[in-house]
Amino acid sequence: MQETLSEKVIDADVFINSVMQQSFNAFNQYKKIAPQKRAAFLETIAAEIEKLREQLVTVAHEETNLPAARLNGEITRTENQLAMFAALIKEGSWVEASIDTADNKRTPPKPDIRKMLVPVGPVIVFGASNFPFAFSTAGGDTASALASGSTVVVKGHSAHARTSALVFSAIKKAIDISGVPEHTVQHVLGKGNTVGKALVMHPFTKGVGFTGSYAGGKSLVEYANQREIPVPVFAEMSSINPVVFYPDTLSKNAAQLATMFAGSVTLGAGQFCTNPGLLFGIKGESFDHFLKLLGKEISKVQPQKMLHSGICSSYNKGLSEMLEQHGLQIIAQSETDVGDMEAGALVATVTAENFLSNKHFVEEVFGPYSLAIICDDKNQLMQCLQSLKGQLTSSIIATEKDIETYPDVIELQHALAGRILLNNAPTGVEVCAAMVHGGPYPATTDARFTSVGATAIKRWVRPVALQHFNDNMLPDELKNENPLNILRLVNNVYTRDAVKAV
Amino acid sequence: MQETLSEKVIDADVFINSVMQQSFNAFNQYKKIAPQKRAAFLETIAAEIEKLREQLVTVAHEETNLPAARLNGEITRTENQLAMFAALIKEGSWVEASIDTADNKRTPPKPDIRKMLVPVGPVIVFGASNFPFAFSTAGGDTASALASGSTVVVKGHSAHARTSALVFSAIKKAIDISGVPEHTVQHVLGKGNTVGKALVMHPFTKGVGFTGSYAGGKSLVEYANQREIPVPVFAEMSSINPVVFYPDTLSKNAAQLATMFAGSVTLGAGQFCTNPGLLFGIKGESFDHFLKLLGKEISKVQPQKMLHSGICSSYNKGLSEMLEQHGLQIIAQSETDVGDMEAGALVATVTAENFLSNKHFVEEVFGPYSLAIICDDKNQLMQCLQSLKGQLTSSIIATEKDIETYPDVIELQHALAGRILLNNAPTGVEVCAAMVHGGPYPATTDARFTSVGATAIKRWVRPVALQHFNDNMLPDELKNENPLNILRLVNNVYTRDAVKAV
Repeated sequence: MQETLSEKVIDADVFINSVMQQSFNAFNQYKKIAPQKRAAFLETIAAEIEKLREQLVTVAHEETNLPAARLNGEITRTENQLAMFAALIKEGSWVEASIDTADNKRTPPKPDIRKMLVPVGPVIVFGASNFPFAFSTAGGDTASALASGSTVVVKGHSAHARTSALVFSAIKKAIDISGVPEHTVQHVLGKGNTVGKALVMHPFTKGVGFTGSYAGGKSLVEYANQREIPVPVFAEMSSINPVVFYPDTLSKNAAQLATMFAGSVTLGAGQFCTNPGLLFGIKGESFDHFLKLLGKEISKVQPQKMLHSGICSSYNKGLSEMLEQHGLQIIAQSETDVGDMEAGALVATVTAENFLSNKHFVEEVFGPYSLAIICDDKNQLMQCLQSLKGQLTSSIIATEKDIETYPDVIELQHALAGRILLNNAPTGVEVCAAMVHGGPYPATTDARFTSVGATAIKRWVRPVALQHFNDNMLPDELKNENPLNILRLVNNVYTRDAVKAV
Repeated sequence: MQETLSEKVIDADVFINSVMQQSFNAFNQYKKIAPQKRAAFLETIAAEIEKLREQLVTVAHEETNLPAARLNGEITRTENQLAMFAALIKEGSWVEASIDTADNKRTPPKPDIRKMLVPVGPVIVFGASNFPFAFSTAGGDTASALASGSTVVVKGHSAHARTSALVFSAIKKAIDISGVPEHTVQHVLGKGNTVGKALVMHPFTKGVGFTGSYAGGKSLVEYANQREIPVPVFAEMSSINPVVFYPDTLSKNAAQLATMFAGSVTLGAGQFCTNPGLLFGIKGESFDHFLKLLGKEISKVQPQKMLHSGICSSYNKGLSEMLEQHGLQIIAQSETDVGDMEAGALVATVTAENFLSNKHFVEEVFGPYSLAIICDDKNQLMQCLQSLKGQLTSSIIATEKDIETYPDVIELQHALAGRILLNNAPTGVEVCAAMVHGGPYPATTDARFTSVGATAIKRWVRPVALQHFNDNMLPDELKNENPLNILRLVNNVYTRDAVKAV
């Protein structure tokens, strides 16, 4: 069913041009479909995925080595995301309807102006290797774009091409059942960046969603900037998720924290964007003690199979480069022998002085590795935090007493990331309205948006104001009667009431 | 009082570095100031400007040639903008507070997550030559950035440097009176792009606001993209604001429409970004008749002094280049002799065939000039609209009958711009919550935002999520009790109610 690209047979540009023309034509129909019907379409995608659950787990396990429990959890999460966006557009207030009514008595007369968010058009979604379901073919980017009223072209990840095609077959069924345009979602495959570049550069493309490496995200941004008409690229790229362990909590909760963070560092073989890669503390017995306990936990962790051989060799290469850096000392590593395509966990330590003098220590090593930085004092800790670039998360591990003692360090932690955690490990990204999965560059290309949670839909829309329109020409969201019963800002007051006709 | 740059005396980079360091230090204080106090600061700026009104009008008239009535109107608008943003942050709901409470019974336990918008940091505002008050030193960009909690460095426009300095003296007084940090707003001057480039490239800069030419905006974007950490540039650059006159309304309302649009084309010597530059119609007696009436009105318009000699010579150069294009015919021009630095109004006409074959016709001629395009039929009209780039406005001049007859053309008009008008002229940008002054590229660099109206504040913020925080560590906006009584999304329900502590 899905369209695949064989570069031997057809030219990539010709193929992509026809895909994008179809997406554009579909968009002109799909954008007019009522929110209730779009919501039903999303729910149907979830239902069709559920029907394939067993098969999906089998194929995805073959392609990604991820264990069945994790894959089942991720399928459930993917279905929940689709349901969340369906609920969001059924409720309807997300369009930020805003109405200022006319005042003909004013000099000059004040016109009636009403605005709402409208979809931008065809969106390109790149599947992510580390989330074959939740950040891939029918993942958050696709679900949020479809909810907004935009059409989607998915570039499936070649590391799980069969999984991607199978998920797309569920989407295709949902398209048929729901009666939305045939090309509302399309699926293309293709190794290398030929296809991806052609998709990003195409004039009909209006937005791009990507989760992956810094190099990958940066090249997409460069393509987008080369366009005659630039388009936004929402790339979630790289984050090493600093954690600061404050002294008072270390003196009280070391064992519990060691368990929590050993679990977080090694979860899913460390293949999460929110993996805690830097563990900061101030020199002293309590930090030493904590690191010893952490080391003990880490050494017990069984090596886990990584997603594919490329990621595994990157991990091993990154790790051995890191171990060569001056001043780095291994605290502990998995004691079990590491098998084929497996990653052994490792934690190491370095002084803040060494850390500050060598930029290599902030390179992301994607896998179950973390570096503890031992600071002489608060000032050195602050210097370390100031040296960091933008992050997805920043974790504060502290008691009330710590918080009172270190307000300036905590303020620095707040400036670093899109999500700040208190006494929580950063792995595990809750799918909810208040989530921010984004952060200052280079964590993402645009800190003003999130790729997880309900507001991820805001990436695929723009506001449009309608001035002096007759009520019958307005979309339902802006009609006087408020037939959708959404929350609106009417003459600077939030209300679900109808607007009194003037 | 204001800091000025003499490149003979000091190096621009050293000077800008000290300005940005001061702005960054001020930001670290200013961002913590309560919204009520920030609002009072904005209101005080307005009050201090009001005290200088007479002097401001005199100086601005000398520098810009704009008539006193217009300048007085613009000062009032500037004060109203400050008041609007003060009211917005006093009400407080603009921060989009969103709360998802914990659920410890779930597997895995659901953490408490709360998010809101926070200011990004120092913002650079470029004064606009065509609005010495409303889009300059204390204009909408400055007011919205200060309201958000960001600090501002204004690059005053050299065409009205004394006006800019005088407005800044009012801001300085307001800083002293309000007790906000001394460097919350700073003012720099400097011809050419040395200073502007240094400001945009500085690592402490977190956002840029600009209203001006396409070339100017594009170069700022290029500087921003050269940075190690890119920053958003909100540039409002170029728009020729297409208007479509549909047949039925032309057969009924030609005289009234001719008066309305002659006024709009020549308002303020055509020096508005929303000036209607393209007037589309379908060939026939009624469009001919309308253009004759429009010509009559235009020929009666007195030439007006332009803002400065540079703009005036650009207008004359642009106009004479346009008049050389194949197929262009003048309909009418100001009958009065054109004096020094004055612009004579002119409307011309061209067939759609010629229009479509020559890209020069869509070049912006900044001044009281407009081009009528005569289309053979609906299809040709649609081709013309499809050939246009993004616009600030798109005007539909139509009866109900026209609207029923031409739904596909109207749909195309909707896709073109950030503001769609029905039977209104596009000049006159109302300052209100529902306004969108923005549009697809190259009208602005980012169609997702507006530079006029309350939501202009959204350009200077990013969302931050706080996970698992104790109530006493949360900002007021996110505390259980909701002490600011703002509208929040709590567990997917919009409410001003307190959150029940778990």
